[in-house]
Amino acid sequence: MTADSALDLDALRSRVARAVDDVRASAPLAPAITNAITMDFVANAQLAVGGSAAMVYLPEEAVALAQAGGAFYVNMGALLPTHRESIPAAARACRDLGRPWVLDPVGIGIGGLRGAVLDELAACGPAIVRANASEVIALAQAWGAADAVAGTGRVRGVDSADAVDDAARAAAALARRTDGAVAVSGEDDLVTDGRVAVRVAGGSPLMARVTGFGCSLGGVAAVYAAVADPLTAAVAASAHYAAAGTAAEARAAGPASFKVAFIDALFNLTAAEIAANPLTIEEVRS
Amino acid sequence: MTADSALDLDALRSRVARAVDDVRASAPLAPAITNAITMDFVANAQLAVGGSAAMVYLPEEAVALAQAGGAFYVNMGALLPTHRESIPAAARACRDLGRPWVLDPVGIGIGGLRGAVLDELAACGPAIVRANASEVIALAQAWGAADAVAGTGRVRGVDSADAVDDAARAAAALARRTDGAVAVSGEDDLVTDGRVAVRVAGGSPLMARVTGFGCSLGGVAAVYAAVADPLTAAVAASAHYAAAGTAAEARAAGPASFKVAFIDALFNLTAAEIAANPLTIEEVRS
Amino acid sequence: MTADSALDLDALRSRVARAVDDVRASAPLAPAITNAITMDFVANAQLAVGGSAAMVYLPEEAVALAQAGGAFYVNMGALLPTHRESIPAAARACRDLGRPWVLDPVGIGIGGLRGAVLDELAACGPAIVRANASEVIALAQAWGAADAVAGTGRVRGVDSADAVDDAARAAAALARRTDGAVAVSGEDDLVTDGRVAVRVAGGSPLMARVTGFGCSLGGVAAVYAAVADPLTAAVAASAHYAAAGTAAEARAAGPASFKVAFIDALFNLTAAEIAANPLTIEEVRS
Repeated sequence: MTADSALDLDALRSRVARAVDDVRASAPLAPAITNAITMDFVANAQLAVGGSAAMVYLPEEAVALAQAGGAFYVNMGALLPTHRESIPAAARACRDLGRPWVLDPVGIGIGGLRGAVLDELAACGPAIVRANASEVIALAQAWGAADAVAGTGRVRGVDSADAVDDAARAAAALARRTDGAVAVSGEDDLVTDGRVAVRVAGGSPLMARVTGFGCSLGGVAAVYAAVADPLTAAVAASAHYAAAGTAAEARAAGPASFKVAFIDALFNLTAAEIAANPLTIEEVRS
Repeated sequence: MTADSALDLDALRSRVARAVDDVRASAPLAPAITNAITMDFVANAQLAVGGSAAMVYLPEEAVALAQAGGAFYVNMGALLPTHRESIPAAARACRDLGRPWVLDPVGIGIGGLRGAVLDELAACGPAIVRANASEVIALAQAWGAADAVAGTGRVRGVDSADAVDDAARAAAALARRTDGAVAVSGEDDLVTDGRVAVRVAGGSPLMARVTGFGCSLGGVAAVYAAVADPLTAAVAASAHYAAAGTAAEARAAGPASFKVAFIDALFNLTAAEIAANPLTIEEVRS
Repeated sequence: MTADSALDLDALRSRVARAVDDVRASAPLAPAITNAITMDFVANAQLAVGGSAAMVYLPEEAVALAQAGGAFYVNMGALLPTHRESIPAAARACRDLGRPWVLDPVGIGIGGLRGAVLDELAACGPAIVRANASEVIALAQAWGAADAVAGTGRVRGVDSADAVDDAARAAAALARRTDGAVAVSGEDDLVTDGRVAVRVAGGSPLMARVTGFGCSLGGVAAVYAAVADPLTAAVAASAHYAAAGTAAEARAAGPASFKVAFIDALFNLTAAEIAANPLTIEEVRS
């Protein structure tokens, strides 16, 4: 970070715009292991931003697709027995291939399988962690990234009991631990690489009334991670989502028409419009 | 039942309106084990009425979410091997916790696993059974609730071969057997606790041209069961669906735009509008 | 084929129109084993064209539904361990019952399970194979239908690396091998029974920006296969999709509103409109 963060914000906006253009030009494949509830939304969001999608359950297929893709997305919602093997296998394949992957640790703390899987993932360095505030705090604790973080890290089902600001320190610590970026979803999103913290405003309260906005944001972050560094990719995905949410709210009569307008907006927004979404940047005080 | 059923209908409408308000005020979590086909619709309907959603497959996670939620939803469509354990585990957890749960025995009669699971559920007393006419008759027979019911109880795939009226006796017998409520879906819905039978009119024929209206109604009934007694919860869910179906048909150009308008209407209808949906009430002659 | 292929095209259009009417009159059940990503779309497309839908995972349930249905749909995307048994069991049941079934070999070449399952299916003669160009070439090679076909047969994730024309010879050879029809999806669709090749124009580029158009086309082809011969059924499904895609594009503001308008159009198009979709027919030179 230089002292001139206004300049850095301009540079960040340029990198975001370039990532949007690069995705639309190259249609990167970001295969996913993701939960059945939101698979359709994840795939359609990935396609709408210009990427390509493929979902798998089996370990062997996950490894094959990790090799075929430009990045990989792992979402831990609604686990099946096969995920005990396939999620670590995909993460290890990505690590060994130097392929960026994105982790959404949804449901962290529920049941034993999820904890066992997350323990194995600790050594596989996700390029981006995308989660709500409580999940980020819980993951930072589980991976030993933060021995004294604010917030409870408690999750009610899959919903956060903490605010985004409560997770800021945990997010920065986690990002330094993974040497990647962490995106905390909330009213405003917070994206950090442990050195700078970017706040992404915009969006719509209706996002909380439709399932899969968080999951599909993770899938889109993986698409961007195929063409950009983790911080840029995470900011591009969050800015794309926020700008589309703002645009969609103006056209929506309720949550379902909002979702339709949102996916249309993902497809229609220009790179310049996405890069112009309200952003702030600041240094992380560690 | 007093002699004055007009009065009882007013009281029922009041209880429905209160349930709608209570859900919107408290956003109760109604976790679900449900089929992959309609998971997205179930979750989005639960969110649109004001509840919270979470879906699981694994037994241990089902028990954890049964503890976390205000009610639980079990839908037996498209079973996986893991459901052999997870569905009974969730039902037993709900029984032991005194947590209401809702059963949709979709596909009853197809294959052996479903029958084995339903046998185990017989001792777990669902607060609400939500099904089509044939499924209600088949479940009443399977659980020994009715040794001489009308109708065939035969299902073609997941569709009913019987009309709602044919299932009225079986539904009442089943409700007395479970000490809960039974909701029979059809052109008009029938909801009974074995003592009174409530008919819910409205809705739209387009509901039969979109997958998941039955499944998601069960999920919404579970949301309402977290804040109201079984009969009120089942009537509130059916009335909410019927009123939204009526509203959506006026705006639809086909089944897909109908579904969008329907979910929007679930979100937008006022408690008074839902409670004013056409209802009749009568005593069950047993 | 007579020399007068103009006449044959008229006859084909008549058969397509009759198939559309027959489906709407009889609501044939076409159960499916299909991937979780697009289950919702498959079921809603089957319902929108006038059929009935049911999805299963377990072998025993697949056999029960193969018996109950007029045709069956097998889609190999996103396999689970249970599919190792359930897909061959369903295909064998269909063969033994003389029930037509439709195969979408999506993801052919990824992992070992898919190859093992496809080997077992070779002896079960699908009435219709529905796939993209690369998948058709790969399946023709795998089943020994074509020892020297053009194109690579290479798939990037689930996307085709070959054009439809590159797959024409492989498709015809495969159709003769299965004694059924093969439908190759692309900008224009190609449908062949090994003797004639029908090209179906129309549709929309937005179909490639939404997940599940291929999968749901296969499910709709199964609905039509319950009432018509394989070639007619495959052409009816492709023509219905192309006409609906053309109609929907005129009303769409992006991929999500396109999907809504598309399903509405599946429901609303008349048999005459579907049969009038741009088609050409030619003899296959073998």
